[in-house]
Amino acid sequence: MYAFFIRTFEGSKTQVELLKEKIRQDGKVLSEEVLKVDSFLNHQIDPVLMQEIGKEFVARFSDQNITKIVTIESSGIAPATMAGLILGVPVVFARKRKSLTLTDHLYSAKVHSFTKNESNDISVSKDFISNEDTVLLIDDFLANGQAALGLIDIAEQAGAKIAGVGIVIEKAFQPGGELIRKAGIRLESLAELQSLQDGKVQFVGEEAF
Amino acid sequence: MYAFFIRTFEGSKTQVELLKEKIRQDGKVLSEEVLKVDSFLNHQIDPVLMQEIGKEFVARFSDQNITKIVTIESSGIAPATMAGLILGVPVVFARKRKSLTLTDHLYSAKVHSFTKNESNDISVSKDFISNEDTVLLIDDFLANGQAALGLIDIAEQAGAKIAGVGIVIEKAFQPGGELIRKAGIRLESLAELQSLQDGKVQFVGEEAF
Repeated sequence: MYAFFIRTFEGSKTQVELLKEKIRQDGKVLSEEVLKVDSFLNHQIDPVLMQEIGKEFVARFSDQNITKIVTIESSGIAPATMAGLILGVPVVFARKRKSLTLTDHLYSAKVHSFTKNESNDISVSKDFISNEDTVLLIDDFLANGQAALGLIDIAEQAGAKIAGVGIVIEKAFQPGGELIRKAGIRLESLAELQSLQDGKVQFVGEEAF
Repeated sequence: MYAFFIRTFEGSKTQVELLKEKIRQDGKVLSEEVLKVDSFLNHQIDPVLMQEIGKEFVARFSDQNITKIVTIESSGIAPATMAGLILGVPVVFARKRKSLTLTDHLYSAKVHSFTKNESNDISVSKDFISNEDTVLLIDDFLANGQAALGLIDIAEQAGAKIAGVGIVIEKAFQPGGELIRKAGIRLESLAELQSLQDGKVQFVGEEAF
């Protein structure tokens, strides 16, 4: 319902073009597997870009009657909140904890981080997802897919309908995307990284930059 | 610059009235010191209310030439991002960590949590705050003031000008507010809790509810 009021950002560039441009300009390739986007997504946030990302998620899932957006703290919160604002639906962020002693009244899932080589639990209160919800799961990065699969697990525990997974940046050279599609879940990644070889960002279907 | 495009929420109610109404309706008084607002601020987020809160912060600091908003993960991110969107400035969220081994290229401060009885470091990359910034520090709750003082410490380490501190809910019966004002920092709290006695929310200057 907000769509009419949102300013068009830099004329006719699409949301995905804006995002890719930002990644090319400000992303730092730290290794063949690590792209650092701390300057606009993971530590410093560009709210105007987040709004554009929110618009794009909403457009891609406009055929779904989404009642709630679910994400994970912390970097998922900004894009998820922008999508929630546009749709006029609540946003729930799963909390990360080393290990849960009190799992009462929580849906929780174990998420293994390959980069940090540690497992964390993520959890959502049972108050905030139900079997009447159609949820859109949003996260900043998709690599090995463990966080997204954790969110899917939680949504399934709640009996919610899963509209799909919306990802800001997918490392298409890692297995997360395939795992989600194999689980029969719709995946929309706004920027898909083909590779980070030779210190260059290469998007799927484009030349290396 | 977005101010003209933002829909007026529920007619003529002020942002503060909307927030207080939400606290009265959905806040849960767990003890004389604890108000749970997980349903719209700390776990589930009401994005439309967050936008109203962002508008109010921007209005209150409209005499300041704010270049950056600084908050703490995770619950500060949504209101801070909304304020950043309206102002068109970046938002930086300080990260919480148990203890920092790598403090290289980081501004960090120790923050003691009285509720959890533990100390954490919060940190911000030196890339994202500088002595050319005028920062607005935003957080969801103000109680003992340790988190806000940590943010002030970090902003001072960076040599930034501090426009002030914006808080969604202040527990005015705890010492944080006084500590911040004593430090000579301007404080704007949108909802000020006078007390939570007898299971009731009482705002400063109002009857118990």
